[in-house]
Amino acid sequence: MLALRVDKKRLALRDIVKPGNPDEALVRVLLSGICNTDLEIARGYAGFNGTIGHEFVGVVEKGALAGQRVVGEINAGCGECDLCRAGDPRHCAFRTVLGIVGRDGAHAEFLQLPSRNLLPIPDNVADEHAVFAEPLAAACGILERAPVSKDERVAVIGDGKLGLLCAQVVALTGAPTLLIGKHESKLRIAARRGIETSGPKEAAKRKREFDVVVEASGAASGFDLALDLLRPKGKLVLKSTFHGTTEINAARVVVDEISIVGSRCGRFAPAIDLLKRNAIDVDSLISEEYPLSQGIHAMKRARTRGVLKVLLRS
Amino acid sequence: MLALRVDKKRLALRDIVKPGNPDEALVRVLLSGICNTDLEIARGYAGFNGTIGHEFVGVVEKGALAGQRVVGEINAGCGECDLCRAGDPRHCAFRTVLGIVGRDGAHAEFLQLPSRNLLPIPDNVADEHAVFAEPLAAACGILERAPVSKDERVAVIGDGKLGLLCAQVVALTGAPTLLIGKHESKLRIAARRGIETSGPKEAAKRKREFDVVVEASGAASGFDLALDLLRPKGKLVLKSTFHGTTEINAARVVVDEISIVGSRCGRFAPAIDLLKRNAIDVDSLISEEYPLSQGIHAMKRARTRGVLKVLLRS
Repeated sequence: MLALRVDKKRLALRDIVKPGNPDEALVRVLLSGICNTDLEIARGYAGFNGTIGHEFVGVVEKGALAGQRVVGEINAGCGECDLCRAGDPRHCAFRTVLGIVGRDGAHAEFLQLPSRNLLPIPDNVADEHAVFAEPLAAACGILERAPVSKDERVAVIGDGKLGLLCAQVVALTGAPTLLIGKHESKLRIAARRGIETSGPKEAAKRKREFDVVVEASGAASGFDLALDLLRPKGKLVLKSTFHGTTEINAARVVVDEISIVGSRCGRFAPAIDLLKRNAIDVDSLISEEYPLSQGIHAMKRARTRGVLKVLLRS
Repeated sequence: MLALRVDKKRLALRDIVKPGNPDEALVRVLLSGICNTDLEIARGYAGFNGTIGHEFVGVVEKGALAGQRVVGEINAGCGECDLCRAGDPRHCAFRTVLGIVGRDGAHAEFLQLPSRNLLPIPDNVADEHAVFAEPLAAACGILERAPVSKDERVAVIGDGKLGLLCAQVVALTGAPTLLIGKHESKLRIAARRGIETSGPKEAAKRKREFDVVVEASGAASGFDLALDLLRPKGKLVLKSTFHGTTEINAARVVVDEISIVGSRCGRFAPAIDLLKRNAIDVDSLISEEYPLSQGIHAMKRARTRGVLKVLLRS
């Protein structure tokens, strides 16, 4: 089968053997989405070698949910540690992660995951929407880590795919939400949903105005801006897994008693519910679609400034 | 009157006019303590010019509490903003801070603070203990920002004055507490209170073992060690106001969903209560005492490796 793989920081489209672990479900991938993490992995992040990709919608070929259209929780836990037994494998120390840690991913004709990781998708959710379940779950994960109430002011930094999903999820709580970004066309997607938008320079004047700031730009400048915007005792949610180290002004974190909260994966159920209710505009986030056989070109496009989600069709 | 002052990063002992603001209490300082923040200010931190020092015990000469022995909350708020009206001036945007921001400090014969900032000290608390009220309040402040329960495992990094106070305060909650430091003689102070101690190398092997880590060393290496020790979703309390920027591995904060919580000043009431109950060993933290007239030498001593608290007697 065809698979888009990274081997020692080199990206290649390969013909590999179809996975055959009888203990796991076999999923025929319909669509997969290219995430910034895929681009980072192709540059060596996480030291992963194998098939990349972790956003997908597919049909179960073999396993408990055979015949059903599904998306999948990407963390596959050991099933035996305290965390797994409590039903949350996202921090299992022995986990594999689809297309990221020790497990071949979704930019392929087929993938495998334990059946317990799979969630059926309601019929009224199109493939092109279902493929957003994973990044939308990540956006919903913000609220697991930093519950937001209606009278809290929230700023989201970064108008990329993740920032646009985060801003929409936060705005649905009723909290006044500001999306900060540099791209007029991307900011308009949020503005169409009634979300206030701003460039970074304008936003920087609003010092100490926000209770919660979500950093989804992955740029170090976003970190400094976040500290400017936050009120004392405010909360900075770090959403981007960026490469290398970031300089922070720890004295400011201490003096203003800021909380910095890392947020990675979210639960899928709230995300699927939002897709089912058509509560999030994901259509506007789809920039381009390519067949899997053009995966290398698609990755190049995903890296291009101004391009949002690039989908691969198997 | 005599005052130890910083002017454009130069430390000097000066004879200045006794403060005379009739709207504030006048306090005759008995003892003041040299804090690492004083050393940082003398190097230019916070850009402060004036009399340094913010840890003190004194007697009110003029004001509502005249004749009483007091310590003082160092943040003097505007009294009018929402934060001040809610009774907590610690984050008032217009605050002055004793010996740190816009207000002459405690290494002097006299100081001034609003009467509402002063707290009487019970008779059974010696001056040498009362002078620890401010740093002990700061240590207690950890529990305001990261409540600790008995079954949580806590590590404190740094065996300096602050680390030793933090470890003692945390251990009083009943939570198993580990103090990590490089100085045998300092670690013994904690060990005598039944607190487990360790060098950093030994501690580094205990990966993902701790629910809460308090960084009180002020060294960047403490930050990395803290991330190693914390379990996923664990909490890192930043207690040191160190100078400049610190490199952090933001990806680790995101992937392990760590919370980093800045903690600065604490409320004085719990600290005074601990001193009254003799629940904290502060005696062992006193290294040396000098008359205020030897303030410059005392600052030099406070900077010396192995020296803990240096007190100044007015």
